[in-house]
Amino acid sequence: MKEQLTVVKLGGTIIDSDEDLKIFLKHFSKIQGAKILVHGGGKIATTIGNQLGIAPIMIEGRRVTTAETLELVTMVYAGLLNKKIVAQLQSCSCNAFGLCGADGNLIRAKKRSVQPIDFGFVGDPELVDAQLLNTLLSENLTPVIAPITHNGQGQLLNTNADTIAQTIASAMSQNFQVHLVFAFEKKGVLSDINNRESRIEQLSSQDIEAMKLSGTIHNGMLPKLSAGFQALEDGVDRVCVGSALELDKIIANNKLATQLIK
Amino acid sequence: MKEQLTVVKLGGTIIDSDEDLKIFLKHFSKIQGAKILVHGGGKIATTIGNQLGIAPIMIEGRRVTTAETLELVTMVYAGLLNKKIVAQLQSCSCNAFGLCGADGNLIRAKKRSVQPIDFGFVGDPELVDAQLLNTLLSENLTPVIAPITHNGQGQLLNTNADTIAQTIASAMSQNFQVHLVFAFEKKGVLSDINNRESRIEQLSSQDIEAMKLSGTIHNGMLPKLSAGFQALEDGVDRVCVGSALELDKIIANNKLATQLIK
Repeated sequence: MKEQLTVVKLGGTIIDSDEDLKIFLKHFSKIQGAKILVHGGGKIATTIGNQLGIAPIMIEGRRVTTAETLELVTMVYAGLLNKKIVAQLQSCSCNAFGLCGADGNLIRAKKRSVQPIDFGFVGDPELVDAQLLNTLLSENLTPVIAPITHNGQGQLLNTNADTIAQTIASAMSQNFQVHLVFAFEKKGVLSDINNRESRIEQLSSQDIEAMKLSGTIHNGMLPKLSAGFQALEDGVDRVCVGSALELDKIIANNKLATQLIK
Repeated sequence: MKEQLTVVKLGGTIIDSDEDLKIFLKHFSKIQGAKILVHGGGKIATTIGNQLGIAPIMIEGRRVTTAETLELVTMVYAGLLNKKIVAQLQSCSCNAFGLCGADGNLIRAKKRSVQPIDFGFVGDPELVDAQLLNTLLSENLTPVIAPITHNGQGQLLNTNADTIAQTIASAMSQNFQVHLVFAFEKKGVLSDINNRESRIEQLSSQDIEAMKLSGTIHNGMLPKLSAGFQALEDGVDRVCVGSALELDKIIANNKLATQLIK
């Protein structure tokens, strides 16, 4: 039987609150066996960007990664947040090891085509070095991954953290029984965005198609769910979406989050 | 016979110039065998700090690391610069792997005493995990180390890059024949700070004491030289100070830099 591996993606507003982050990291550090953390950015990048006079450029509601923005997210994601998380996990007896996709050539990505829309220095993962993660895990290290990749020709690229979590989980499913948890501030996928308690217990990709048509699903949730279903397709054992502050309970009891099913 | 390991500390103004940095990294990538790069900060941290309204606080000519400054240097050193260097080395077929002292608990440091002067969140290395570096090197990875450490209790600490290079070189000298190169924009230790060509060929710690008394040595050079002599004391095979832009020649021919001798 394959060894168990838990991949947790931390997103949403948790990373913006020192108190919430601490609770989450305590839960994360106690997960038994091999584990990997992938983290997103949070509001701090926008705050620091504003202070530096880097105005966000949006096209169709999505942020464009200009050269300036790339420097900003590299600093904040791979520097400030990644090392803060690593130091805190170290204090919880978790031998965390921070890296981004450029380190050890972990994630080679392709700069997204400028057609039809030029989103700038954004990359889509092409290749994950699962062997490198195996090496780190076999040394009892816990990889903590910032959502920055590279193209192998010296160019760093901004990459969606949900996509990174899925790509890593998919690649690792060759050798591990992988549980992928998308953790954020909500209790799961909500049927009513205004009702915190309206968690949907389980969702299939067919459900999503129906919900898209009826307009009952929040747009911001779709990329996360696509990533989750892709992971299931690729052989990841379990995928769920749930509260970062209840990660301990989600790990112990799947019923507390929204389970994605094939 | 022990395997050869080259530890290069990159300092000075090289990191501030994209062109110079590229030349240096090309040379570095071509060093045969096991190698480790330790990099400093450069002017970019000051520039970004100014933009963020973080005023440098100095005591006796030395910068105090306030909580704000610590966030700044963590972002810039461990994020922006570290990942830029890693991505560029990757493009030179060097499997670079960026980390700071918190990652994998590589360098545990002690916050400096607030007596007689409180320099803030500054740490002095106490323990290096040479085994972790051995593991990375045995996977043909090239560690690229940013000068940030931690205390094991969740606190990141700003640490002098020369000291980190020395501490790493000393720890690795147990298992490797280590060559430590302090690379920067000058050709070596100069006998006349205003004459670029006045490189001193070799220096002993006795020479330094004499030069301190006669005032012929630039103050900024002293910590680097102390670190270098400490490395020799600890069993490092060769230590030199020389031009980052001539790293290829320094590696091939020791006569082009200032050699430190016991």
